[in-house]
Amino acid sequence: MAERVRIREVGMRDGLQSVSDIVPTETKLAWLDAEYAAGVRDIEVSSFVPPKLLPQLADAEQLVRHALTRTGLVVSALIPNSRGAERGLALGVHEMNFVLSVSEGHNKSNVRRSTDESIEDFRRVVQLCHEHAEDHRPRINCGLATAFGCTIEGDVDEDRVRRIANEVAEAGADGIALADTVGYGQPAAIGRVFRKVIADVAPVPVWAHFHDTRGLGLANALAAYEAGCRGFDASLGGLGGCPYAPGASGNIVLEDTVFMFEAMGCDTGIDIEKLAAPRAILHAALPNAALYGAIAKAGLPRNFHPEARAA
Amino acid sequence: MAERVRIREVGMRDGLQSVSDIVPTETKLAWLDAEYAAGVRDIEVSSFVPPKLLPQLADAEQLVRHALTRTGLVVSALIPNSRGAERGLALGVHEMNFVLSVSEGHNKSNVRRSTDESIEDFRRVVQLCHEHAEDHRPRINCGLATAFGCTIEGDVDEDRVRRIANEVAEAGADGIALADTVGYGQPAAIGRVFRKVIADVAPVPVWAHFHDTRGLGLANALAAYEAGCRGFDASLGGLGGCPYAPGASGNIVLEDTVFMFEAMGCDTGIDIEKLAAPRAILHAALPNAALYGAIAKAGLPRNFHPEARAA
Repeated sequence: MAERVRIREVGMRDGLQSVSDIVPTETKLAWLDAEYAAGVRDIEVSSFVPPKLLPQLADAEQLVRHALTRTGLVVSALIPNSRGAERGLALGVHEMNFVLSVSEGHNKSNVRRSTDESIEDFRRVVQLCHEHAEDHRPRINCGLATAFGCTIEGDVDEDRVRRIANEVAEAGADGIALADTVGYGQPAAIGRVFRKVIADVAPVPVWAHFHDTRGLGLANALAAYEAGCRGFDASLGGLGGCPYAPGASGNIVLEDTVFMFEAMGCDTGIDIEKLAAPRAILHAALPNAALYGAIAKAGLPRNFHPEARAA
Repeated sequence: MAERVRIREVGMRDGLQSVSDIVPTETKLAWLDAEYAAGVRDIEVSSFVPPKLLPQLADAEQLVRHALTRTGLVVSALIPNSRGAERGLALGVHEMNFVLSVSEGHNKSNVRRSTDESIEDFRRVVQLCHEHAEDHRPRINCGLATAFGCTIEGDVDEDRVRRIANEVAEAGADGIALADTVGYGQPAAIGRVFRKVIADVAPVPVWAHFHDTRGLGLANALAAYEAGCRGFDASLGGLGGCPYAPGASGNIVLEDTVFMFEAMGCDTGIDIEKLAAPRAILHAALPNAALYGAIAKAGLPRNFHPEARAA
């Protein structure tokens, strides 16, 4: 039996929020449908932040409503706070992703509160969701940003990541994402931390959210996989990038991530060749945004036989 | 004690042979010296092919003579046959790298003989070198090209790679390189093959020669490392690429490879920041050649402390 690996498209949230152009809602819907047609079954469709803060994501409600009509698609959205959670609950998203930073400095800079205060906020979100009809409540995930280094603080202590992961698991997280928000991670640290956190919080799934800023994105994904991780965030064409590092890519590239795991014999459920369609849609919508990815340039190798696995 | 990882610059041979422009000898010498100053101690400086076939590498003798004056630098050169080996012996290179393809079709297309015939050629090269003053003879390495897939044959059988590795070890190889010549490799296969071959041929060192054509270069390097490999070929800026895959990179990028291993706590002996100097030399010499690499774009992260390892 092939190992099942889930790959979640986060470009519609993480990618688009770092692009200043506003992509029309119809284009996002076409992107979503084309990925669904390629077999993608996990999509973070938007973020429930105030539209004034991120006008790029102002159509979150429309995207969620549309996504929920696609059978088998796990529809998730980022929620910055209880207010966002209320929007998610009202719409009936399947998963809500709360984010806090392991690095105190990063958390303060982002949300003007300490990491511990953000953990309290997360508890309130969990409480709110549990007050919702328990059998219909969404899963509540907690992302731990800057888990492998921080542009403000530099080093991030591995024991602190583990401690916070345990706290949010005890607080009721249905899933935890360890995020290399700024592309500071390296495989040895990632292997160590994933191994410990996965053992600590089992059976709560631990996802990987990696950026490819320093070229180690897929090596880091491999290290997380070897440590037991089976869920990975990625974005089509690596959409995103960092405004402070010209030419540096954003999330790990969806197409290449699927390729790595499928080539290794894992089952992602995604047909790589069909990812050319959403990529074309994205490129047409954002002709000036850099799209990354080696498979899109070089094509699949002749020794790639995902169909043999199914046989 | 930090694990020692050797990283060999092969851009002066593998990179330049796929670039049509001819780089002046003085520029190559400046490149070599700048890398030496950065701590690089393994360089494949050229190939002893007939200058008519590869005019880009016609100055092999001059490069070797210069490189041999640099204390502690392991000077290697590719040799296509006994004729090339004679040139290497005459000059006193430290290592000679013979290459044959595991894939029959690739070997025939490259050198018009079967893989077994090429193994016989390798035996003759070993014989020739052993007839040379034994205490002064160079090390003779054998590279197994297309070890993880072939553009002509597609799949390459893992047992065949192992069988050929054992044959060239028995033939007297002082080192073996398993080469993903066309960027078809994936981490699971690479881990399996390196583990078996390393166990079979020990204590003969097994090097990794990977191309990053499909984005898995560093993940593949990580898999080889975890299987016990401690020697990696790379090229500055990923110089090389493939003329048939526009935008696809060549060898794994030297700077990023050093970064990955140093960030993991390994000791490569190389100062990444000093690699900016040879990169500038290369860019000035080949302004139209694509240079790859994430570290050159994004810079080192603030949690990178190679000096802490030495302390």
